[in-house]
Amino acid sequence: MTAFRSDIPAIYHPDDLREGEILTLTEEEARHLRALRLHPGDDLQVLNGRGVRAMARIELIDRRTSKIRITTIDFAGANAGPYIVASLGILSDKSRFEWFVEKAVELGASEIIPLLSERAEGRFNRDRAERIAVAALKQSQRLTLPVIREPLTLPRLLDEIARFDRAFICHESAAVTDSLAGFLRDSPRPGSLLVMVGPEGGFSEREVELARDASATVASLGEARLRAETAALVALTLATSLLAPATETIESVPNEP
Amino acid sequence: MTAFRSDIPAIYHPDDLREGEILTLTEEEARHLRALRLHPGDDLQVLNGRGVRAMARIELIDRRTSKIRITTIDFAGANAGPYIVASLGILSDKSRFEWFVEKAVELGASEIIPLLSERAEGRFNRDRAERIAVAALKQSQRLTLPVIREPLTLPRLLDEIARFDRAFICHESAAVTDSLAGFLRDSPRPGSLLVMVGPEGGFSEREVELARDASATVASLGEARLRAETAALVALTLATSLLAPATETIESVPNEP
Repeated sequence: MTAFRSDIPAIYHPDDLREGEILTLTEEEARHLRALRLHPGDDLQVLNGRGVRAMARIELIDRRTSKIRITTIDFAGANAGPYIVASLGILSDKSRFEWFVEKAVELGASEIIPLLSERAEGRFNRDRAERIAVAALKQSQRLTLPVIREPLTLPRLLDEIARFDRAFICHESAAVTDSLAGFLRDSPRPGSLLVMVGPEGGFSEREVELARDASATVASLGEARLRAETAALVALTLATSLLAPATETIESVPNEP
Repeated sequence: MTAFRSDIPAIYHPDDLREGEILTLTEEEARHLRALRLHPGDDLQVLNGRGVRAMARIELIDRRTSKIRITTIDFAGANAGPYIVASLGILSDKSRFEWFVEKAVELGASEIIPLLSERAEGRFNRDRAERIAVAALKQSQRLTLPVIREPLTLPRLLDEIARFDRAFICHESAAVTDSLAGFLRDSPRPGSLLVMVGPEGGFSEREVELARDASATVASLGEARLRAETAALVALTLATSLLAPATETIESVPNEP
């Protein structure tokens, strides 16, 4: 990937993007451009959250709407590396789950599943999580916005386990020798991966058995007692860092006429 | 380490701890016991932040003071694994640096050095950071409270580089093939390690050269543009997870007469 154009502001516009096309922005996006003190003629980046980054120029900003013209398609392609899904138990402290969403976008998770596990408490506000994810996408200039799912119970999540090459359930009482870092370092690189982390209080033994029976591997994150959202971030960091391709695979797309 | 006694509240008391000894708590600690609704006769854990965890019983709680008796020394020993020092550029958003302090304690950093690098902005409040670190110590029941240093400039930090077996400076423009994960995975395990992460805006090229000249390795954290505090957490997660000993080395101490 080329150097990040951190000096050029980015907006999120979840549409197909085509060179030369003029896009009419929503009122919220237009407000965002005004907040950035941008003017007609200024450049900006457009991320569609589905693998495409484009350069654009502002044609019009007024009170209700804005128009921008796509000048070039910069990059197109999925995130490099495996499809990583992080499932974290819903936390009674909402801000800690939302913080996790922000970090998961930065780290390149493909999907986030709030988990209604036995010890989960509190509610999950999906609209708010999506707004936070979009803000993190623009800040990190990631190409792919993770899918944020509606909360699932553990049995429902385990019904989906067949779509993953590997699935891990992180559990405090797992032997330290069964570390997630060790598993990821020593096994062949999966194409898709699920990591499950419990809420405050962790998973019950019954839940761990259920996951094991569904072919998930029980893994340790080390000897420390981590907060739930720290544990989820550690698991995601290990997955994205240890499974990253050795070379870059995102391809630049030549300008098409 | 035995299972965490997460049901027994923990306090921090930075003194030598001896079995049978009666400790007089400070007014703040006494307030903490009252906030936890504890009463004489109740058990608690005492962490001295210098490697010792003890069990204690409350003898007295009154308005001004409290007395507890150390019943047994549970564990004594340093954190397992290498001595890891994380140095992060001071951030204009204080709460993000403080968040990093909390996570660094959970992950087992031995020392935190706020870095007055070229692009650092804002101030560092050491008292507040120490309070946050103590809260995280109690929550995570770690044995060692990281040393929180006064801010250093990069040249001053590099003056100390000889005390580390390995030093890394994380930089966006490092080749993705020079990943920190790769370096840590493939080299012999160091006894002590310094990881340096820039503030918002990262390090300047001049600073990276300075560190390289002082024998630091320039390392990449991957292709994504991470927030400064996320980058520091990723670096610390990789260091603590990839350098963790395969077996536990904290030893239980037999009760002494």
